[in-house]
Amino acid sequence: MTRVHSFSISLDGFGTGEGQSADAHFGHAGERLHQWMFATRWWQPGGSDGVDNLFVQQHDPGIGAEIMGAGKFGHPGWHEDPQWKGAWGPNPPFHTPVVVLTHHTRPPIEMEGGTTFHFVDASPAEALEAARKAADGKDVRIGGGATVIREFLAARLIDHMHVVVVPIVLGRGKRLWDGLEGLEDDYRIEAVSSPSGVTHLTFARTGR
Amino acid sequence: MTRVHSFSISLDGFGTGEGQSADAHFGHAGERLHQWMFATRWWQPGGSDGVDNLFVQQHDPGIGAEIMGAGKFGHPGWHEDPQWKGAWGPNPPFHTPVVVLTHHTRPPIEMEGGTTFHFVDASPAEALEAARKAADGKDVRIGGGATVIREFLAARLIDHMHVVVVPIVLGRGKRLWDGLEGLEDDYRIEAVSSPSGVTHLTFARTGR
Repeated sequence: MTRVHSFSISLDGFGTGEGQSADAHFGHAGERLHQWMFATRWWQPGGSDGVDNLFVQQHDPGIGAEIMGAGKFGHPGWHEDPQWKGAWGPNPPFHTPVVVLTHHTRPPIEMEGGTTFHFVDASPAEALEAARKAADGKDVRIGGGATVIREFLAARLIDHMHVVVVPIVLGRGKRLWDGLEGLEDDYRIEAVSSPSGVTHLTFARTGR
Repeated sequence: MTRVHSFSISLDGFGTGEGQSADAHFGHAGERLHQWMFATRWWQPGGSDGVDNLFVQQHDPGIGAEIMGAGKFGHPGWHEDPQWKGAWGPNPPFHTPVVVLTHHTRPPIEMEGGTTFHFVDASPAEALEAARKAADGKDVRIGGGATVIREFLAARLIDHMHVVVVPIVLGRGKRLWDGLEGLEDDYRIEAVSSPSGVTHLTFARTGR
């Protein structure tokens, strides 16, 4: 199974804002797409333990590897910094092999806690093949950003997707839905709104 | 008050598809954006009477006039047909004055049942002024399409908006959200998902 979890977008479909930098990982969106997550018990003691918390907890169990885009691994230009190891500190929250899709490959980086970054310049299908091997029988999470998820959807490589629609209008950035006309034909889609204001969408691939 | 009701969009924000014509009022979207409405008791005996039905019933009460765009009044080129009186038959479902925004003005058309179409070439603010007079103290509905609602939102002329997000990806057509960055600053927004699969969004203007 390939899975997407807790991928947050604005009402107008942007998964990240414009102007990404070392200080603004999501550009002008700031942290606004993820406040719902920070308010859960999964994130902090005393947080909410309703539907948002249930969904956010699905992120890790059963996952054996992640695939992420270059834009998630670092701000534009990270490949010019030989010391760049991602924005997550010495012990990143993945704890599995992570395949980073990039045109600027480098040797793998082994971090604390079980995360190893592998840098590959490959198509979605090729990257998935590599990630599946690394996942050792477990599922592969497609970690984003928007461009990567869109490419994997277009290649019909995603089995389960959880998208969170946050009630803000970003106006600019990277869109999730472009070029995916008719996506609903491949999935059973459910929507559930939360008291926090967000709406959780789940896409379960149907037989094809 | 200016109000928008039951304006249906796809996940990717399109309020109508591409290729509108006399036979395809919503272009390649067909009727897919409005199936949720046809399934309600408001539309047909024996229909659903839950949250979808509650929302759809808000369309008419308290409304004294509607403003609609040229693209809602007819398919492209209608202004070349002097007999064109809209796609709703002799007794249109508005039963109030209707201001049609168009660069091709013509004399008013009085229909059965209280609907009169008035054709004006005006800015949103000017059209609203005309509609308010015609509404005789009641509210004005901004009837769409997407372009017209977007223009009225950009001009900060909408007090209440009900948008229905339908779980399909249209890919092309006319977008609602473009150019509306920061819209959430002006509104209290709620989301409620329905068993039918759609999500109702309500925007209530806060003090400014």
